[in-house]
Amino acid sequence: MYKDDTFFLSDAFAADTGIELLDVSPGKAKVMMEIADRHKNSHGTVHGGAIFTLADAAFAAASNSHGIPAAAINASISYMKSASSGVLYAEAEEFSQNPKLAVYNVHVTDGNGGKIALFQGMVYRKTPRR
Amino acid sequence: MYKDDTFFLSDAFAADTGIELLDVSPGKAKVMMEIADRHKNSHGTVHGGAIFTLADAAFAAASNSHGIPAAAINASISYMKSASSGVLYAEAEEFSQNPKLAVYNVHVTDGNGGKIALFQGMVYRKTPRR
Amino acid sequence: MYKDDTFFLSDAFAADTGIELLDVSPGKAKVMMEIADRHKNSHGTVHGGAIFTLADAAFAAASNSHGIPAAAINASISYMKSASSGVLYAEAEEFSQNPKLAVYNVHVTDGNGGKIALFQGMVYRKTPRR
Amino acid sequence: MYKDDTFFLSDAFAADTGIELLDVSPGKAKVMMEIADRHKNSHGTVHGGAIFTLADAAFAAASNSHGIPAAAINASISYMKSASSGVLYAEAEEFSQNPKLAVYNVHVTDGNGGKIALFQGMVYRKTPRR
Repeated sequence: MYKDDTFFLSDAFAADTGIELLDVSPGKAKVMMEIADRHKNSHGTVHGGAIFTLADAAFAAASNSHGIPAAAINASISYMKSASSGVLYAEAEEFSQNPKLAVYNVHVTDGNGGKIALFQGMVYRKTPRR
Repeated sequence: MYKDDTFFLSDAFAADTGIELLDVSPGKAKVMMEIADRHKNSHGTVHGGAIFTLADAAFAAASNSHGIPAAAINASISYMKSASSGVLYAEAEEFSQNPKLAVYNVHVTDGNGGKIALFQGMVYRKTPRR
Repeated sequence: MYKDDTFFLSDAFAADTGIELLDVSPGKAKVMMEIADRHKNSHGTVHGGAIFTLADAAFAAASNSHGIPAAAINASISYMKSASSGVLYAEAEEFSQNPKLAVYNVHVTDGNGGKIALFQGMVYRKTPRR
Repeated sequence: MYKDDTFFLSDAFAADTGIELLDVSPGKAKVMMEIADRHKNSHGTVHGGAIFTLADAAFAAASNSHGIPAAAINASISYMKSASSGVLYAEAEEFSQNPKLAVYNVHVTDGNGGKIALFQGMVYRKTPRR
């Protein structure tokens, strides 16, 4: 039910924000976004909400990659560098999982490998009871 | 230059996401968003990125309310309840500020006062040197 | 089993760190710590770990105040002001709870009401099934 | 002045908590702690404050490894597994730095490689002006 592509393709907000899924495998995912004017904030750089949404999309794809529905319960993001043109990538990697919880690290980088943001997210996993 | 309305009105991503500014005063701000299908995730509820962006818009308006440019450097969000229709509100309130940093609490609630998410954000303030 | 005082009194690390419980009621708690040299870091101010532990003690007391065991799963802290003498207080207040999760805000202040740190924590609640 | 060992050795709270520095190099650090009863919480497992302090010690050593004083301004921690005996390790690694800010990831593991907690921290760097 939570097959990777189907899962991502049904994510309306990620699609609306212009996010594309590049890769997904158990516990990992990579997404990208081409920066457009509509992604910008009042300072003229990519909005923190757009960067968060990009990281969150990688986190959602990675955390739902095991076939068990996973709902985000917590996330933290640290912004290191602003971006204003080109592409942004977000790569999520699982730190650890147990039947109820899982935690992911997500790196957001630009097209030149510049470190834009570091994101950490936790999901609640709806592991079925036997 | 960072007058409240002008600041918010130039936020392209907040506008694109359908966020409206309801109120802003020194250190405080309130915004709202009418939930639409485009805000949803693969689970059919409002996307964590959309909820974060709503909270972030209140945080940006509050932190830039003092007339000194403030750039978000860190944010954390805890999601408590999903939402799928109606409106969402985010209210930001300053916890503390110093010349370089300021911290804000943001409460995200639904139209019935239900607690959707708790957000905490820190900005770096570009206070001019004398 | 999780009566307030008994719960706090069995917290060895909080006791070892010199933290005292001042008050606890459903969803709320207040603790204090008299600053000593052993609480300091290499910069000569109270260690981030000691400030976190103080906030965490208030969070633990508040989140276990309902009689249901609550285990911390996530916390974020923003430091605004250093402290080097006198007392520190931490006050926890519940933002929201559901059968599985609860979220708390904790304010850390000094003896003059100065804002030292803002803490946000989430617990997993072991609500018994019927 | 911020030579690695000297810096760590002057950290009273880390010493008081029983934390030892294993290794430090530019942008990285590893510390350990032997679990004792005084580190425990009311649930009989290692206190979140002790785990945070361990991670924070690695973060402080790594962030001060460049010879520029770095003060923690923000940290987030996600707890995945409780621990009650043996040793705990924390390894910090720099994600990115600029003249004012730097961000670190810290992994806390037990003696068997079990993933205990994931920590993310940001410092404000007091880079001298020319």
